[in-house]
Amino acid sequence: MEPYAKLFPYLQNQEDIIYFDNAATSLKPEVVINAEANYNRFFAANPHTQDYKQAFEATQMITQLRERLSEFLNAPKNSSFILTSGATHSLNQVAFGLQSFINPGDEILTTSLEHSAALLPFIEVANRQKAKIKLLTENDHGKIVIKELLTKITDRTKIIVYASSTNVIGALNDVALINKAIRKVNKEIIIVVDAAQSIGHHKTDLSDWDADFIAFSGHKIFAPFGTGILWGKKPQLEKLTPLFFGGAMSDSVDLEGIGFKMKPLPERLEGGTPNISAIYGFLKAIEFVQSIGIANIAKYEKKLKNYAIIKAKNIPSDLATFYNLENDGPILTFNIRNYNPQDIATFLWVKYKIQVRSGSHCARIVQNQNIAPTSVRASFAFFNTTAEIDKLFEAILNSDNFLEAIV
Amino acid sequence: MEPYAKLFPYLQNQEDIIYFDNAATSLKPEVVINAEANYNRFFAANPHTQDYKQAFEATQMITQLRERLSEFLNAPKNSSFILTSGATHSLNQVAFGLQSFINPGDEILTTSLEHSAALLPFIEVANRQKAKIKLLTENDHGKIVIKELLTKITDRTKIIVYASSTNVIGALNDVALINKAIRKVNKEIIIVVDAAQSIGHHKTDLSDWDADFIAFSGHKIFAPFGTGILWGKKPQLEKLTPLFFGGAMSDSVDLEGIGFKMKPLPERLEGGTPNISAIYGFLKAIEFVQSIGIANIAKYEKKLKNYAIIKAKNIPSDLATFYNLENDGPILTFNIRNYNPQDIATFLWVKYKIQVRSGSHCARIVQNQNIAPTSVRASFAFFNTTAEIDKLFEAILNSDNFLEAIV
Repeated sequence: MEPYAKLFPYLQNQEDIIYFDNAATSLKPEVVINAEANYNRFFAANPHTQDYKQAFEATQMITQLRERLSEFLNAPKNSSFILTSGATHSLNQVAFGLQSFINPGDEILTTSLEHSAALLPFIEVANRQKAKIKLLTENDHGKIVIKELLTKITDRTKIIVYASSTNVIGALNDVALINKAIRKVNKEIIIVVDAAQSIGHHKTDLSDWDADFIAFSGHKIFAPFGTGILWGKKPQLEKLTPLFFGGAMSDSVDLEGIGFKMKPLPERLEGGTPNISAIYGFLKAIEFVQSIGIANIAKYEKKLKNYAIIKAKNIPSDLATFYNLENDGPILTFNIRNYNPQDIATFLWVKYKIQVRSGSHCARIVQNQNIAPTSVRASFAFFNTTAEIDKLFEAILNSDNFLEAIV
Repeated sequence: MEPYAKLFPYLQNQEDIIYFDNAATSLKPEVVINAEANYNRFFAANPHTQDYKQAFEATQMITQLRERLSEFLNAPKNSSFILTSGATHSLNQVAFGLQSFINPGDEILTTSLEHSAALLPFIEVANRQKAKIKLLTENDHGKIVIKELLTKITDRTKIIVYASSTNVIGALNDVALINKAIRKVNKEIIIVVDAAQSIGHHKTDLSDWDADFIAFSGHKIFAPFGTGILWGKKPQLEKLTPLFFGGAMSDSVDLEGIGFKMKPLPERLEGGTPNISAIYGFLKAIEFVQSIGIANIAKYEKKLKNYAIIKAKNIPSDLATFYNLENDGPILTFNIRNYNPQDIATFLWVKYKIQVRSGSHCARIVQNQNIAPTSVRASFAFFNTTAEIDKLFEAILNSDNFLEAIV
């Protein structure tokens, strides 16, 4: 898949850079960058009106994105794609949108590997409603252990929220299997899947998954920043109190300013001017992924990861600790000796032009899961190469020369 | 100011179009479109890390935008600019962020000319807390009547929210004077100003205004869609419960998943990945406006409006009704006979390539204010010309020929 690098201006403009920060954000292909710019050059309009051609076409782009996503993700009937500003927005919309349905003593089940965007809104809503957060603590190399999950479901379990793939170690949960197991125990439990990390790397089949809600960001699947999706089954979306009240989502206000009428779904949950130039880019990003094929992407990235696993196993164990050699998700998480992860990241950048991310990766309680609270994360995409991985391991082997001087 | 049209690719690509929908969204100048694209070509990174140069520079762009805004809007010390996805987001953040401070019987004072984005969040929060919405109903050609305002303030008045300039008729309130009058009665009242319509057309002096919060969208001041600002005095911002919980705004979560620590301002209110490519465009948009001068923009647009007023006064009163000939805001709102405003807009587009907006303009209860519930709005910018206004009036004079056929 190497020739794909040429589709990304960032890589063309700085040929010697190795971009291994794909889990933080995707690089944007030329076709997406151009779409966003061309929106402003040729359409420009604020949508939601038919007053002139460009505004009407803008409104149609929103419909087209929903249709394209529906096809790409095999959405079941009677479900809808809500456009948001990102996964954080989507997950907060679900958590606080359901607030009035959560009663004291209710339980929200999640895992200690979650990203803050999935964990915090539910902690907050649980605290507000005097509900309980229950954490899954076992893990099968980063994956949910269904047996533990089932033992933790009680009569009070209201919501289960988890990532299809965690952003720290990239292990891919079998969402369909997990949800099937949950449904068997209790059909009423609301299942929320944070798909932010898997959406651009693994196949998502919403009909097969059978979740109630899923959330993801556009910028992790080659779309512009500032875009996101909250997908939901319609009867579940109908339950949600909007997070944003305002224009586009309302129909009328009574003369006393007391009551107002809201539009039907999906607009009811889409208050405010849509991020329309980015939405057009989002549409082009989905078409871009479809043209390459998500299965091809997954297959190639698995090969890359497996290549990295073999390399990692040859690294002396006193030099580096790798946290995720047992899964084929496109993420390699590690530490080198007891060096500060940020120093390692700086070293990789300064000496090798390798871009990785250090820190907690917004997953705050992974220490429950035998992973260091902070680490270095190299995350791959389908334009990366085995030669780039060789370079990373060359750097790891040479790290003492540089890092000992700092400590 | 006519040569400015050449800075906007949309106008260059479609030379015969007359863009009179500036109140819905600004056209984007080349410098802003390029900045956004170049972000993705040369920076690409998700900010909030110093792991590599581009990510560090991205983080700095956010700081630069806050500094530039602070200078442009003359922000007082001990205040802060929160980056949001738009004015709707900002206003919802204020309303629901203050929810726990609003008690049964408290009063929120606003006007019936407000945009839904200002009105609805406060109606909703009032209903939730059993507080009352009180509406100002008098108006001085679209401006707040301070005398009425003062008679409506009571001991229970908690919040006053109003637009610096309404989006239906464009009259500019004297915000500094209004707020001074409010402060004189009760310093504790929280003053929220929706500056979305005035921000790109009139000078904003935050030190002089002395509001507690102001909100606006980037896309109405030549910045990309998906950007917005909530400005506030720090002690007031400190009161707000975040609307978005997640990454970037949190520091740590305890091992049981019950408590978490939030970052200080401004990050505390900026959960999620920033819309960073658009933020870079926002920075360039503010520099763009600074380079032209907001005073020059205001002066020129006032001339345009006054030109339109003279033209409008020559139109037979049975042909067209104009709703805002007594203010010099850059908006002309009208109806033609009893034709449907959407038909008028379509006529203007199809026959004259004039882009205007029809409908309620998201202001749902203006009928309290002697304005038709729906109308046609032509809104001007500093690149528009008197020749374009001539064309609009030519169209109005010829409207019967086209529109009688439809009715």
